[in-house]
Amino acid sequence: MPFTSANPAWAARIERELNAQGVTPLLDIVIDHQEPGRVTLSMPITPKVVQQYQVVHGGMVTVIADSASGLAGISLLPPEDGVLSIEFKINLLGPGRGERMIARGEVIKAGRTVIVAKADVYCVENGVETHTAILTNTLLVAKGIAARVK
Amino acid sequence: MPFTSANPAWAARIERELNAQGVTPLLDIVIDHQEPGRVTLSMPITPKVVQQYQVVHGGMVTVIADSASGLAGISLLPPEDGVLSIEFKINLLGPGRGERMIARGEVIKAGRTVIVAKADVYCVENGVETHTAILTNTLLVAKGIAARVK
Amino acid sequence: MPFTSANPAWAARIERELNAQGVTPLLDIVIDHQEPGRVTLSMPITPKVVQQYQVVHGGMVTVIADSASGLAGISLLPPEDGVLSIEFKINLLGPGRGERMIARGEVIKAGRTVIVAKADVYCVENGVETHTAILTNTLLVAKGIAARVK
Amino acid sequence: MPFTSANPAWAARIERELNAQGVTPLLDIVIDHQEPGRVTLSMPITPKVVQQYQVVHGGMVTVIADSASGLAGISLLPPEDGVLSIEFKINLLGPGRGERMIARGEVIKAGRTVIVAKADVYCVENGVETHTAILTNTLLVAKGIAARVK
Repeated sequence: MPFTSANPAWAARIERELNAQGVTPLLDIVIDHQEPGRVTLSMPITPKVVQQYQVVHGGMVTVIADSASGLAGISLLPPEDGVLSIEFKINLLGPGRGERMIARGEVIKAGRTVIVAKADVYCVENGVETHTAILTNTLLVAKGIAARVK
Repeated sequence: MPFTSANPAWAARIERELNAQGVTPLLDIVIDHQEPGRVTLSMPITPKVVQQYQVVHGGMVTVIADSASGLAGISLLPPEDGVLSIEFKINLLGPGRGERMIARGEVIKAGRTVIVAKADVYCVENGVETHTAILTNTLLVAKGIAARVK
Repeated sequence: MPFTSANPAWAARIERELNAQGVTPLLDIVIDHQEPGRVTLSMPITPKVVQQYQVVHGGMVTVIADSASGLAGISLLPPEDGVLSIEFKINLLGPGRGERMIARGEVIKAGRTVIVAKADVYCVENGVETHTAILTNTLLVAKGIAARVK
Repeated sequence: MPFTSANPAWAARIERELNAQGVTPLLDIVIDHQEPGRVTLSMPITPKVVQQYQVVHGGMVTVIADSASGLAGISLLPPEDGVLSIEFKINLLGPGRGERMIARGEVIKAGRTVIVAKADVYCVENGVETHTAILTNTLLVAKGIAARVK
């Protein structure tokens, strides 16, 4: 189902909020696709994001997955409001390896106080996508918090 | 309750596995305390780990929390075996800010196939610790996987 | 994507396992649809399953959701093997009320040791379906456990 | 740490809310202990709460665990306010069997909008308690909702 944004400038906002994160330049996260309620991010898989078995650390999978689903939630809101992730859960379906990691975030339910969202994470290895993780999270709508974005 | 390790050299092993992670030097994660079944890690809070509201990104909280609880699980195992995090869930109790983030990992139940562990995360701001997050995760015991640690 | 069952008699097995549960007659749970990797269950919404605000108790939503996703996992296995739910997480999207509750279970990833599955829960009120909850769970494959089903 | 209730009649309230649940008489749930921020419930383990391997269904473990942690949250609130469980996650540590199931609910963090709580579940078999499950949940504070309790 299609979502409607309460912000005509949602696209510019998503870019600005992504780029205001310190983790974005650290991990070279970029936007692959965006529409109201859906944001896809990707990042290169490099030695700095791996755990001891040389696959992507589950926490780093979470960084991109939570960013994608959180931004999907933000894309629906009025310019002045934002969200806080209050909890998330991730199932790691397989080892994160290859060239790139892609996180497709999507809003499941947009309430006034709480937004529930999810992200599906894929790894691209030799051009083939593998489903690597699923995340669901609970986003608390925070009135006026957008002013804190620098 | 106290745990017993199946590895006399568990302490050296935890150090080696932590340092084999690519995320360890990236985030300057160090060991504050370790005993069988319990591992405490900490890292500085720097601009590179924050999200757009300038508090620690939930995914970065997860990196240190999942590392602490995962290593707590590994500390109990024979030298040749390791664990894979198959899922985790985190509740963010408050904003992650201050000087340092501390994650206290602990095994809850050590089964033959599955280890359930948790981590409590604290932020130190002006010398005061605040409870920032709780994580629980499920670790699958992986026979012989330790050979993959470099 | 379609799943393949390792049990030619998967359909009869799902019925037998559902009916071996004590919770099945208690809550009048029935099978609405089944195919390998996908099982839909439903039950009436009655006063005995509600919490104090007279909507379905989150734990009762979990009973039907976990049953549906667990049976979806079992439908793929050889006759002698089964699954144990080792963890699940549910987001409640709205109040559970109306005439019936439907849980559509589906396997997300079927590994040799671990199956990850999900269930979407809907309430039917005056003939209209509302998305009420999403559950993901981790199922541990238990060799030979089917002999315990009575 | 001790909690302070905003309701002088918190004890009577917990009893009333527990008994307003339809699931309470169905499962014979009783209060074993209560104080502000902590509620312990128990119920008999009977054939009606089991799954196909004759141990307590994970959903039924959730009914008592979520009730205990939810009531622990409610115990802190003003008389007119209540909570809605918006999500929970449970790890099943072992099979639920024996004579009784006990759920010890406790508030972890009581915010103005969101309360995070947990429950530890134990089974009593031949007088011995075994740790069976851990649940964490997120409770949304709902202003004025107590009027809906009958």
